[in-house]
Parts: sequence; C-alpha cells; structure tokens
Amino acid sequence: MKRQLPILLLLALTAAAPPKTLTPTEVINAAPAAAWRTIPADDLLVMTLDGGGRVVIQLAPAFAPVHVANIRKFAAADYWQGAAVYRVQDNYVAQWGINEAKRALSAGAVAHPPHEYTRPARGLVLTPLGSPDPYAKNVGFSRGWPVALYKDGSASLTHCYGTVGVGRDLHPDTGTGGELYAIIGHGPRQLDRNIAIVGRVVSGIEQLSALPRGSETMGFYKEGSVAKPIVAVALASAMPAAQRPSFQYLDTASPSFARYLHVRKNRNDDFYRVAAGGVDLCNVPVPVRPTPGK
Amino acid sequence: MKRQLPILLLLALTAAAPPKTLTPTEVINAAPAAAWRTIPADDLLVMTLDGGGRVVIQLAPAFAPVHVANIRKFAAADYWQGAAVYRVQDNYVAQWGINEAKRALSAGAVAHPPHEYTRPARGLVLTPLGSPDPYAKNVGFSRGWPVALYKDGSASLTHCYGTVGVGRDLHPDTGTGGELYAIIGHGPRQLDRNIAIVGRVVSGIEQLSALPRGSETMGFYKEGSVAKPIVAVALASAMPAAQRPSFQYLDTASPSFARYLHVRKNRNDDFYRVAAGGVDLCNVPVPVRPTPGK
Repeated sequence: MKRQLPILLLLALTAAAPPKTLTPTEVINAAPAAAWRTIPADDLLVMTLDGGGRVVIQLAPAFAPVHVANIRKFAAADYWQGAAVYRVQDNYVAQWGINEAKRALSAGAVAHPPHEYTRPARGLVLTPLGSPDPYAKNVGFSRGWPVALYKDGSASLTHCYGTVGVGRDLHPDTGTGGELYAIIGHGPRQLDRNIAIVGRVVSGIEQLSALPRGSETMGFYKEGSVAKPIVAVALASAMPAAQRPSFQYLDTASPSFARYLHVRKNRNDDFYRVAAGGVDLCNVPVPVRPTPGK
Repeated sequence: MKRQLPILLLLALTAAAPPKTLTPTEVINAAPAAAWRTIPADDLLVMTLDGGGRVVIQLAPAFAPVHVANIRKFAAADYWQGAAVYRVQDNYVAQWGINEAKRALSAGAVAHPPHEYTRPARGLVLTPLGSPDPYAKNVGFSRGWPVALYKDGSASLTHCYGTVGVGRDLHPDTGTGGELYAIIGHGPRQLDRNIAIVGRVVSGIEQLSALPRGSETMGFYKEGSVAKPIVAVALASAMPAAQRPSFQYLDTASPSFARYLHVRKNRNDDFYRVAAGGVDLCNVPVPVRPTPGK
C-alpha cells in the first residue's frame, strides 16, 4: 500500500531511518545458499500458453503419488494436445485441461485413482505455524509445503493462493489429473481433504490470475470459447537443458524460514504501526526463487 | 472445482440425489427480503474505467468518517480527473488515484486526516465468527462488515478480498483518500490497524483483479504507463436515477446470515466428503446483491 515515493524522498528516508526490523523480503534475501532446496526437474511441470506465457508447477509426489504419476504420463504422451484454460472464476480458481470423457487415457495412467485427499501424518516433520487455525488440529510446514494435521492422524496439503488440485465431478470421483485448477483468490480451505492437491504454481501464476473471468456460472467460458489455449505441457526433466527452468524453495525447517515466519507474524518495519503477533497459514507463502546461475 | 458435467449426467444426478445440505449460494437465495439491507446511495462510489468497466465501492463512514468525507468531496469536485489504476501486484492489490503531491486538495477536504485505522469497539454489536483468529482477540460481523476486536477495546475493519483502503507513505502519514487500493489476493490481515480501510468493492472487482500485473517493483507500472485510465468517479447519490446502481447486503445479524455462516463452516453438500467445522473470517464474504427490481 505504499504510494510511489519520489526518488529523492526515498533516498532521504533510507539515509535517515534504517528499518526498525527486516521485512519478509529482506529476510528471504539474507538466507544463505544452504537454506535453499532445488526442486527436482521431474517435479516441475511446465505449461506454455498461447502467446508464450509460461506457468511452472511444482508437483507433490509425497502427497498425491498416483495423481502425480498420471500427470507425468500425460505430459510425456502429449495428452493435453488441444487443451485450454476453460474456467476462470474470480477469487477462486483458474481451471484447465481436456475433457477426460473425450480423450483416451495415456498408457499406464490410472483411470480411477485413490482419493489422495490426505496421507498419514506419520513421516512428516512439522514446523508449526504457531497461530490458531480454524480448519485443522494443527498446521505448519513440512518439506517446503503448507500442511494441515487432523485428529484422525491424517495430513493434507492446503488450498492457498497458487495451490494446484485435480478437477473432479461429485464425490467419490477423484479425477485423473487430466483437468487441473490453480487457486487465484483467498485460500478456500474448505476444499482441504475434499480434493486431491497435486502441487503449486511456483512461477507464472499471473498468466492465470490475470485472465478475463468467464461469463458463465462458476466462471466457465461459453461453449466453444476459452480463456487461453495451452500449446505445450512438459516436465522440466524432459526439456532440453537450455530451456529447462529450475527453482528452489526455502527449507521450511531452516533458521531462515523460522525468521521469515517470525516477521510474517510481527511486521514491524517502517511502514507498520502495530504488529499482529500472529498469521494464518496461507499468509505465509513458502519462498521460491529461480535457482541462481541457472 | 467441479468439472463441466455433460448435461444428461447433470440431470440424472439432480433427479437421483438431492443435495445433502444446502450450499452457501442456496442459503443466500433463500433469504427473505427482510434480511437484506439497501446500501445508502451516498455510501456507493461508482468508478468507471476506460472501456466502460464499472467498479462499485461501498464506503464505510462508521469506521473512517474523515477519509470517507474526503472521498465524497473528491468525487463531487472531480478531483480524480486524469487518474488511473497505476499499480497491480499479484495476490495483493490493485491501486489507483492521482498523485496527491501534484493536485490541489478539493475544497473542504482534510489534508492530514487522523489515523482511523481503528475505532472504539463500543457501539458495535458483533455476530461472532465462532472460529479462532490469529490476528485479533475476537472477529465477526457488524453492520454488514467483517470486523476485528482487540484487547485494547478498539475495533477495525479487516483486509479481505475486495477490501478498499487508503494508500499512504510511511507511518504516521495516513493518506487523504486520493489514492486507494483494493485487495485482489489472499487477505493480507497484517495490514489491519496499520492503514485506513474505507470500504469494499461490491461489484466489478474483476475489472481490477484481471488487469495485467505491473512489471515494476510492487506491481507498479512503468513511468508513463498505466493499467487502466479512470474516466469518472461519482457517488451513486449524484448520478441520474436511471444510471444509479443499487445494492443490498445480507444483514449480518439475521437468521439467514447465521445459516450462511454455518454452511460456510460445514460444507456438506454433494461435492464434499469432509466438513471442516470452522472457517476463517475472509472466507465468509458478506453476501451482496443488486437491489431487486432496480
């Protein structure tokens, strides 16, 4: 909400009054190389839209292995040929893919995957958020992901801005992964445990969030019309090295992430008057950056 | 996240299995006329963008009276002539107005308003959210607005999707209201109590949220370039009756709102497998509709 300060005033402020505490961005920029984890190229799905816009998605095989395996097979088999972003609902989702009823399943893909809406909490080491959450027994971060833990011993990824999940029809259908959505509004956490989350957008979310909203119910585009054709979908691992993107996330078990979480709860830099002292899970996006030198 | 069901399948499902419980939309649609409150025409700010897109903002004089009075004066005096949306930051804000340093204040406007970041909680009757909140002692709804109450006896409006606030420089500046922003991402509640909230977008948020993101730091557009020129800003009360929009919000003290809040916490219609049992404040947008017959 800062206005554009004249350059001279900005310089004067910088010289006269160093920030009281670091901003989240300053904490991220100060994180040492050892605090960053490179995302495996096999976990990066690169979607190129008509016009050249590129959306890069980090897949989450530890949470939805069967759906992620399907998605990898779809990418390899060019399953999404002719696919498009066909739904953009304001403050909710952008959704894309191909009508599963009209396309033969790629070889080796699973037609009816198990739910994968949750997984056992066992095996996940949690960095707790440390603030109350209305949706789960406990929430925090594990292996670079926002995670919720439930009373029954299960865990799930959570619907925050940029989260990618699997479009499906009514329960108990789970979808194959041939139709996907990304969250482009306030985190709709009521979807947690009700849908398979397969990843998150790590780059290019604005290629989806800035699309015109669909005119029909739930943001669908009119029959015969789409928000944006998809021209290619590939795993980074299948791309020529020169075009292959690479990203890193901040290790959520690192001291740098602990500092980042602390300042997200306690904004006390020059702009702020009162620090909240708490924060909600989706208001702590896990920092991601392009791998330096790549 | 529903996919597009073939029409025949949709009909079959409708015939075979009526919803287990109502959806939030069904609860809203079932609310009687008496549960709706018409927003006074003097509280509706109508902003027309280049190309004809219209954004309608409900002002909140009970929370930021001096800033709202300024905004009404600016609208009456055509203060925003030549103004534009000049900042669009993904998952954060769209911001617009005119550089206050370059425009003479409208007659009667206050150059340095008081903070108005909070107001006394006294006088506000709260419909509690009934779920924990990380940012405040208690949260809920009052007079149609999402509200937070703090230990020191103060109350504030909250930064949720569509919230409109006053751009400012570093604290203790509060801005005049000549530069405004709307939230277009996950609710950045850390801004609560740190900035003057003056209202919310009740119609046309997609005119702001779907704009291309600015290429510069914090989503600013390059010098000499804007996201969208603003061609007119007027209070509904100053517009000819035939063009004047009218909106109603669901009374947050009504039984209908209580039912709506309940289903937002306990989604149990056919799509859902597990109801969360709780919800966060910004995930309960107060229902607003065009006034019927207007």
